[in-house]
Amino acid sequence: MSHNSFGHLFRFTSWGESHGPAIGCVVDGTPARIPLLEKDIQHWLDRRKPGQNRFTTQRQEPDEVKILSGVFEDPETGEQVTTGTPISLHIENTDQRSKDYSDIKDSYRPGHADFTYTEKYGIRDYRGGGRQSARETATRVAAGAIARKILPDVSIIGSLVQMGPHAINRDNWHDAVIDENPFWCPDKEAAAMWEDYLDGVRKAGSSCGAIIEVTAKNVPVGLGAPIYGKLDADLANAMMSINAVKGVEIGEGFAAAALSGEMNADEMSASKTTDKSAPEFSSNHAGGILGGISTGQDITLRFAVKPTSSILTPRKTITASGEETEIITKGRHDPCVGIRAVPVGEAMMAIVLADHYLRNRGQNG
Amino acid sequence: MSHNSFGHLFRFTSWGESHGPAIGCVVDGTPARIPLLEKDIQHWLDRRKPGQNRFTTQRQEPDEVKILSGVFEDPETGEQVTTGTPISLHIENTDQRSKDYSDIKDSYRPGHADFTYTEKYGIRDYRGGGRQSARETATRVAAGAIARKILPDVSIIGSLVQMGPHAINRDNWHDAVIDENPFWCPDKEAAAMWEDYLDGVRKAGSSCGAIIEVTAKNVPVGLGAPIYGKLDADLANAMMSINAVKGVEIGEGFAAAALSGEMNADEMSASKTTDKSAPEFSSNHAGGILGGISTGQDITLRFAVKPTSSILTPRKTITASGEETEIITKGRHDPCVGIRAVPVGEAMMAIVLADHYLRNRGQNG
Amino acid sequence: MSHNSFGHLFRFTSWGESHGPAIGCVVDGTPARIPLLEKDIQHWLDRRKPGQNRFTTQRQEPDEVKILSGVFEDPETGEQVTTGTPISLHIENTDQRSKDYSDIKDSYRPGHADFTYTEKYGIRDYRGGGRQSARETATRVAAGAIARKILPDVSIIGSLVQMGPHAINRDNWHDAVIDENPFWCPDKEAAAMWEDYLDGVRKAGSSCGAIIEVTAKNVPVGLGAPIYGKLDADLANAMMSINAVKGVEIGEGFAAAALSGEMNADEMSASKTTDKSAPEFSSNHAGGILGGISTGQDITLRFAVKPTSSILTPRKTITASGEETEIITKGRHDPCVGIRAVPVGEAMMAIVLADHYLRNRGQNG
Amino acid sequence: MSHNSFGHLFRFTSWGESHGPAIGCVVDGTPARIPLLEKDIQHWLDRRKPGQNRFTTQRQEPDEVKILSGVFEDPETGEQVTTGTPISLHIENTDQRSKDYSDIKDSYRPGHADFTYTEKYGIRDYRGGGRQSARETATRVAAGAIARKILPDVSIIGSLVQMGPHAINRDNWHDAVIDENPFWCPDKEAAAMWEDYLDGVRKAGSSCGAIIEVTAKNVPVGLGAPIYGKLDADLANAMMSINAVKGVEIGEGFAAAALSGEMNADEMSASKTTDKSAPEFSSNHAGGILGGISTGQDITLRFAVKPTSSILTPRKTITASGEETEIITKGRHDPCVGIRAVPVGEAMMAIVLADHYLRNRGQNG
Repeated sequence: MSHNSFGHLFRFTSWGESHGPAIGCVVDGTPARIPLLEKDIQHWLDRRKPGQNRFTTQRQEPDEVKILSGVFEDPETGEQVTTGTPISLHIENTDQRSKDYSDIKDSYRPGHADFTYTEKYGIRDYRGGGRQSARETATRVAAGAIARKILPDVSIIGSLVQMGPHAINRDNWHDAVIDENPFWCPDKEAAAMWEDYLDGVRKAGSSCGAIIEVTAKNVPVGLGAPIYGKLDADLANAMMSINAVKGVEIGEGFAAAALSGEMNADEMSASKTTDKSAPEFSSNHAGGILGGISTGQDITLRFAVKPTSSILTPRKTITASGEETEIITKGRHDPCVGIRAVPVGEAMMAIVLADHYLRNRGQNG
Repeated sequence: MSHNSFGHLFRFTSWGESHGPAIGCVVDGTPARIPLLEKDIQHWLDRRKPGQNRFTTQRQEPDEVKILSGVFEDPETGEQVTTGTPISLHIENTDQRSKDYSDIKDSYRPGHADFTYTEKYGIRDYRGGGRQSARETATRVAAGAIARKILPDVSIIGSLVQMGPHAINRDNWHDAVIDENPFWCPDKEAAAMWEDYLDGVRKAGSSCGAIIEVTAKNVPVGLGAPIYGKLDADLANAMMSINAVKGVEIGEGFAAAALSGEMNADEMSASKTTDKSAPEFSSNHAGGILGGISTGQDITLRFAVKPTSSILTPRKTITASGEETEIITKGRHDPCVGIRAVPVGEAMMAIVLADHYLRNRGQNG
Repeated sequence: MSHNSFGHLFRFTSWGESHGPAIGCVVDGTPARIPLLEKDIQHWLDRRKPGQNRFTTQRQEPDEVKILSGVFEDPETGEQVTTGTPISLHIENTDQRSKDYSDIKDSYRPGHADFTYTEKYGIRDYRGGGRQSARETATRVAAGAIARKILPDVSIIGSLVQMGPHAINRDNWHDAVIDENPFWCPDKEAAAMWEDYLDGVRKAGSSCGAIIEVTAKNVPVGLGAPIYGKLDADLANAMMSINAVKGVEIGEGFAAAALSGEMNADEMSASKTTDKSAPEFSSNHAGGILGGISTGQDITLRFAVKPTSSILTPRKTITASGEETEIITKGRHDPCVGIRAVPVGEAMMAIVLADHYLRNRGQNG
Repeated sequence: MSHNSFGHLFRFTSWGESHGPAIGCVVDGTPARIPLLEKDIQHWLDRRKPGQNRFTTQRQEPDEVKILSGVFEDPETGEQVTTGTPISLHIENTDQRSKDYSDIKDSYRPGHADFTYTEKYGIRDYRGGGRQSARETATRVAAGAIARKILPDVSIIGSLVQMGPHAINRDNWHDAVIDENPFWCPDKEAAAMWEDYLDGVRKAGSSCGAIIEVTAKNVPVGLGAPIYGKLDADLANAMMSINAVKGVEIGEGFAAAALSGEMNADEMSASKTTDKSAPEFSSNHAGGILGGISTGQDITLRFAVKPTSSILTPRKTITASGEETEIITKGRHDPCVGIRAVPVGEAMMAIVLADHYLRNRGQNG
């Protein structure tokens, strides 16, 4: 019932504030003897790292992860592997310009959790948002790197499918394009258009939202459990826990409401392979989950990220003592936080799947 | 880590299959000395009860709830009140026409969990869908009735805001209208139109989806906790766990992606009341939650229900032994299961809020 | 974090008061397709059932268990088996002489939880002790019957090794004797002596305590996990949760304090079997658990039960309003509640092992 | 369901191996605005620190704790206080003589978890025992220091009441003596005698066990909850989770078995104070807990620690490949690990009480 832990058999506990000495997490429940080096985790952290282009915050954090526990040399291979004990991951905060935030010490930034933290706790670490900062998501990406190792056959791909009001054209979708632009956008033309759009947003001191899509391929059948261990419900929880997320949908999602039962049915035909447990589905409106349990089809979900709340345009607000004022958030901010949410969404997908994989093996081994 | 329990300090565990002798739940963590009679729960069950008009399943279940434990006469008032011990709620299944389902024993209904249950467990209770039946949601409504008692000042109102492709006109919204039509529709004109539309759907042997909106008013500030105890993440989990739900959004939801930071900011001005902790917000794009913590504004969410999978139109599928076949689901089904999801969504909102109310009191007393 | 649930992957939630309409529990996490009939559970309940001889309470409860959910006919064998969904067990209370307890309505019985329940909750169901009654342990025995089915090769044997001040002579231990006397005593001579002793205790309106030993044989190596999932720590929790238990020890237990390191060492020699993972141990001071993980040796533990608090000798106490008074507990009580704790201790052992078996399979499957 | 976390609302997650770069823990659920400096934690760590006299391991660890998150300056007082977010505690391992352990790499030390870790995980960090090392208990002491701050009025005192076969004389008990000898012994004469005794044990290359008693004074009434949230059951779990502990008892403990019901009854008389909720008890056989709930009396428990398994006397064992061999554990070890278990037992008592204090406030606030 910890507020800072996620998962059950595969479970991680995150800690740290934006401008404290470090952030990190403890990853518990990883099976033993899985090869794990720091660079395996660093690979995914680097994808999320800020300051890589003009569209993300200019904060320069190397985000170097250290593994402080839970690994040892394998008795047979000599490789560094997991031991089944908790893995402590540690990332120093190196670029903390605390002075940037001194003017928001006493005022509540609209759209941020300044007001609610203060009301709930009577105190908040205002430096860079403290615990509410998206900096915490680095620990999710690190934990997600370990989760991926538990399900080596599963591949998870996130991408941005809408920036502000501009959606991609799905006919232009190419997986290979995703890594070739700063937006994880699968549509080359949309990516080009977004570049101009986002420059405009940034120059106007404004911000925009985004929609992210995450797909998991090659997921085993049978992950998730009725009724309150449903895979889709846990995914919804996972995605909604990411900073600034306001909506989650699985498969057809909200559009399913407008479909007829006939249209929405994913019909089945006999498997063309020798694997009886993998029928052919005519479609995947369900997004790979039926009754809370994975079908073996691709799991697809989307989540919506609101526009970055830190903007250069002044907004009305109040101070902690109830005085009316205006606020501009200077700092170093992403005009579209949705971009950096892509690797975070991938990580949370990996974490949920790894947890359910272990849970399923436990109950139905 | 139980798969059939929901919540933490306020926690309920549900059990039962559609065509077993009974369904029920155990509600744990209710504070002591809260007045509780069976009729307090029955009131909400009756709202959900099927067979009340031609638009919901004709299954006739009185759904009479019995309280088997956890209540006793109050030492001072003599009223029946909670005692702080677990409350066992019991609802008999009285109208189980098992024969209706014999033809689906060996075939997987598209859109249902027949395939996934069988793959995961090697067995499924096929009578009326067994555990995957929406009948389980009666226990949620019963638990929700107790949850409401923990937060007596909070009012929770659910309504249908879209049926199939037909959304309401929000300018026509009147709370009073919601209870005056069979759809919990706040827009009188839409309700009239839906009546014809749904008759058509039903006569065509088809089905349609829906979008439900649930609002909680008068919610205390400070419910929910960062990072993995966020109120919105728990609400997303709760709603996505309801049968047939494919999407959840809070406040502005998916539409937030298309807004600018300026537009999406909920500006604050000084409270007009003496209560410093309740500033005036200019808007509620956030849906009453910032950083995972309630702001004191109305909490608003929407969830999408897919079209009923049980339809009279034949669909292609396979049998458990891998043969191709076609299937029609006869039984007694709702053409739009979204209608009956309204009270279930309300109940889950109440359950999440009650749990977080107790959790918040525990950590921040 | 429910107060009335026990276990993680194998988890049961109990409910019910001594004099309510029924008691029961929900057993969650049982793997699918395990044969399970009511009589499989009834077998163990009958062992615990009161009123079987003059040494246990004369309350006459048939304690007939009903399975309300979670079972169905196996698709291959046609047997009734588990389905992987929650199993609801229901036991009616049939012999509730509420009048016996009316005089303790306002006074706190020493040694009972009357005072603490009232202080904590402001209310207590005083009929037969309500929720604090040992009647709740029937649900543990029922859940334990299912737990045993998850580990069919493990055998669990409980016995009474001390009644009041009178310990058995371990040289006289014969497993076969345990079922041949009303005390589950493995020492025939001690059992004979205890019969006279307990008659004396009963006639004097007094009561006595007991020490119970529970052994699990044929336990797989590897159950339990460091640091806060230790098998022995979970067993200590389980046993201490039984009514009237005041101490728990594993293996050598408290006596280990007086041993030297050489004496306490369980030396190992090469396995005489082909199973490399089962070395020969020269002794079992550890009680089958090292570092919180099972060694494959017998798991042995003992727990101490205090003398029954309900006695016919008057004791000083106070009323709920603070007046001094004396109290005699009439009712129908066991002079030695430790006797009926034997099957309960066995059940809790089974439950803990089953849970850890599933957890181990999950993490290390 | 994490294996390395303890507690519910107040919850800590520990990580680290004896000879890794560091150990630490994340403490979650601490209420906000509690003053907390590193020195507040250091105070308790210093009590546990090894190498302080010739009776504990000569390993020289400064055990300097760093707070990496969860604290900030209080908006009113300017003091460093908790913020309600997770507190990450970090202790470097500075004196890791890994070479001492190279000879036990392939052999299983009797009484240690070498065999069980290897069987369960297929790997173990053999350096200094890795995760099974008592070094982990430093993190418990650190977490316990925070727990104490949640219940500032409660005082918790641990002491050694038996070393090897030599128990204290309770008539000689003086609290003030506890801190004046290297054993936390409340009996001056026993302490003097133990000094000689333990010198003999150490010189003989042997080891001895101990019994520790922990008392909590000024505990609020009402902590703990039936049936599976009992305070005594959670304390039993907590103490049994400490390295080398083989038994736990509350109040009268195992001796209660030999008492009559009359003798064991803690009679009540009217409170001599104005506080109606605090009757006078004639005795405290119950150890301050009835029905799993605190009575307001002192909570007293004892736990037994087995003799240190690492001894200089050769013991028979096998290697990982099944060869028979003998083993001597050189390293730097305590002849009586029970001494250093005293502050650990205190810490676990504090942690359990703090957790139940928050849980009680949540459910019954």
